[in-house]
Amino acid sequence: MNQKKSIVKPSPISGFLEFMPEIQLHYDGLLSELRKLFSSHGFVPIDTPVVERLEILAAKGGDVDKEIYTITRARANDDDNSDASVALRYDLTVPLARYVAQHFNNIAFPFKRFHIGSCFRGERPQDGRYRQFTQADIDIINPDNVSLSFDADIPLIVNSALQIIGIDNYVFRISNRKILSGYLEGLNIENLQAATRILDKIDKIGRHGVISALQDELQLDTQKAEQVVKIASISCADLSFVDQVLELGVTNGTLEKGLEELKYVMERLQTSSQNSGRFVVDLSITRGFDYYTGTVYEVKWNDYPHLGSIAAGGRYEDLAGSYIRKSLPGVGMSVGLSRIYGKLVQSGAIAIKKKTPTDVLIAWEDSIDEKSLHTLGEKLRAKNINTEVYFKSDKIQKQLSYANKKAIRYVVFPSLNEVKDLESEEQYVFDIETFKVST
Amino acid sequence: MNQKKSIVKPSPISGFLEFMPEIQLHYDGLLSELRKLFSSHGFVPIDTPVVERLEILAAKGGDVDKEIYTITRARANDDDNSDASVALRYDLTVPLARYVAQHFNNIAFPFKRFHIGSCFRGERPQDGRYRQFTQADIDIINPDNVSLSFDADIPLIVNSALQIIGIDNYVFRISNRKILSGYLEGLNIENLQAATRILDKIDKIGRHGVISALQDELQLDTQKAEQVVKIASISCADLSFVDQVLELGVTNGTLEKGLEELKYVMERLQTSSQNSGRFVVDLSITRGFDYYTGTVYEVKWNDYPHLGSIAAGGRYEDLAGSYIRKSLPGVGMSVGLSRIYGKLVQSGAIAIKKKTPTDVLIAWEDSIDEKSLHTLGEKLRAKNINTEVYFKSDKIQKQLSYANKKAIRYVVFPSLNEVKDLESEEQYVFDIETFKVST
Repeated sequence: MNQKKSIVKPSPISGFLEFMPEIQLHYDGLLSELRKLFSSHGFVPIDTPVVERLEILAAKGGDVDKEIYTITRARANDDDNSDASVALRYDLTVPLARYVAQHFNNIAFPFKRFHIGSCFRGERPQDGRYRQFTQADIDIINPDNVSLSFDADIPLIVNSALQIIGIDNYVFRISNRKILSGYLEGLNIENLQAATRILDKIDKIGRHGVISALQDELQLDTQKAEQVVKIASISCADLSFVDQVLELGVTNGTLEKGLEELKYVMERLQTSSQNSGRFVVDLSITRGFDYYTGTVYEVKWNDYPHLGSIAAGGRYEDLAGSYIRKSLPGVGMSVGLSRIYGKLVQSGAIAIKKKTPTDVLIAWEDSIDEKSLHTLGEKLRAKNINTEVYFKSDKIQKQLSYANKKAIRYVVFPSLNEVKDLESEEQYVFDIETFKVST
Repeated sequence: MNQKKSIVKPSPISGFLEFMPEIQLHYDGLLSELRKLFSSHGFVPIDTPVVERLEILAAKGGDVDKEIYTITRARANDDDNSDASVALRYDLTVPLARYVAQHFNNIAFPFKRFHIGSCFRGERPQDGRYRQFTQADIDIINPDNVSLSFDADIPLIVNSALQIIGIDNYVFRISNRKILSGYLEGLNIENLQAATRILDKIDKIGRHGVISALQDELQLDTQKAEQVVKIASISCADLSFVDQVLELGVTNGTLEKGLEELKYVMERLQTSSQNSGRFVVDLSITRGFDYYTGTVYEVKWNDYPHLGSIAAGGRYEDLAGSYIRKSLPGVGMSVGLSRIYGKLVQSGAIAIKKKTPTDVLIAWEDSIDEKSLHTLGEKLRAKNINTEVYFKSDKIQKQLSYANKKAIRYVVFPSLNEVKDLESEEQYVFDIETFKVST
């Protein structure tokens, strides 16, 4: 019937993830666990359209700007440009800001929301970077001020999320932007922004590279440059960072406030049952000079350092300043779900045999009327047992081979009142009242 | 801090749905129930990128073609047109066909999949029509042939889905394309396609309109035209359609096959525990002449007839003929989730007071150290009780008012070892071992 048809061979589109059904089944299970986790802490879900107005998305400028996808009707009439002004979102923070501003009067604050959704960037695809990818974000927003207590909650919840996703070899690097800016202020560095930008490169260009850059670009003398870089070298898994900073001998109000805040957050993380040595103070991290104003977080996956951060975030003072004349501070983190899960799939860490969620297959036996087979199926489903009725009159051997192929564990033979466990190869009396699926 | 900033007032983008958090919480609960339902019948989830190659999407032609959104980088370099060829999907059937063809060798057949996902159409927004909307599709595909048993399973599962969504006043109109084409063949009508297209308008132009059109456009004599229209008038909730068709006196092999198939499907639907009189034979429905080849389904919501169908589908013989030289028949239905749920929200049928999933708020009491509050929170969450710890030192009245505002039912006072039920206003001893959340 397909003679003479032209055949288009379907192939993957670069930069877009797609899973086989058995992997998707596993992934959906994770998403459901993540939703439960976030709900268990009182976060509500939101979901926004995947498009936002282009003017809003493009306001950020810089690199992201070039990566924004606009949507256009392939064959729009010339007089209809109603879509011209919208584009696909590149993160879930811009939609959050717009959402909070737009629905401000109907939101119950503090607004604790989670959002698991697709984002889009026209990046050159590479390992761990996709053109469509899923982020899981949690944020807490409150007009005027947000309790510091939430700064400790956020990384604890994200840590639980990463545990659910099933990775272990990662570290939270935590700092507080006030420490760095207070310290630089205390040293009378004039161009805070430039100094921070240079310090942010310490991972790439090293301590000496930073010192040279500070000397060249900011005309600091050697002693001053060395003093600046000292703060960025402080890293510890306990509260000793406070003394280490004080020993540098700089006094500044913002610095002290930052130390106090970070000390509170680290105390909470250390006394939590989740304390596992992976919450580490690292005063070199900055995470965006303009946006974050307090605690900052960055999670690296030691197994795949080239992926960059797999989760990140922090505290900000002005979420929605472009939309609303209110101060809307918040604190949150974003987890790069596609980046993490895509790597787990790619590396073979997720390998699943079960090609269906079905627990029980009811064999089709010609001696039993079809209605009874389906009634039995309905009864099993009512007991939360995923059940298929075999779909036609067929040899028992073929029916068993269908169950094997999809790794369905139990086959019920209604005429015999028996069930076969394909894993143990045992066959025994089937009693619907007492039957249980082994896990 | 926001002085002198220009403010962009955020407003909804026409044709794109967005819910308040408490509605989204309810909707997400439904989605989770739907996933459980589909899984309980052995369907696996798939999720595909929201884009497909434009050549694949545009192959269908016609109206849909004009509504396809392509994506373009807002500021692409001239030499990089790697995105130029992809567009947003307008349904979940094209992605299914491409997916099955692409992953053919790794799929376990019969392939029973469900897909809940966003689709995009550049339509003029109107009641029940969105530019981004969510469909829930179930399909069963098997190379060469698909058991007729599935033709009865599909509407039963979709009926369960509609029950979960919470609507009741709807009817499944069911037919079999073979009946109509066999009947027209038996009457020696030459232009089957034109005759079917005219008959499909019976809802709009009525019986007389159809007869006139058949006379005018196909040059049928009055008697023939009247004979043609008779088949489209047959509608019943039982098996009497068989006799009604036979009484028309047309004999044709395809017609008989269609009657036999539809009889089997209706028998299964009638003997199901779900039989509720809403499965109705209606021989006037056609659902796309080229695509469907057997059973066809169309669900109308009597409360909102102007919405058109809220679920529809049928049996097709050639899912992926453009991609693969195999016959890939299947049967499936698509549920218009956004259309239905959007209307429920709009009409006020879904009104929720609870602004959070939280069951228990642990009061912040200065006499209790913060660590103990959080440890208690972790213990309650471990018992599947959604719990928030209040976030700062505050007057008890303010803490109770927070719980009231978000409709959190229980407030625990750790210093007193007591819990207050805000619904019953009772306060009693809090014992974490025995504490339960009333539902």
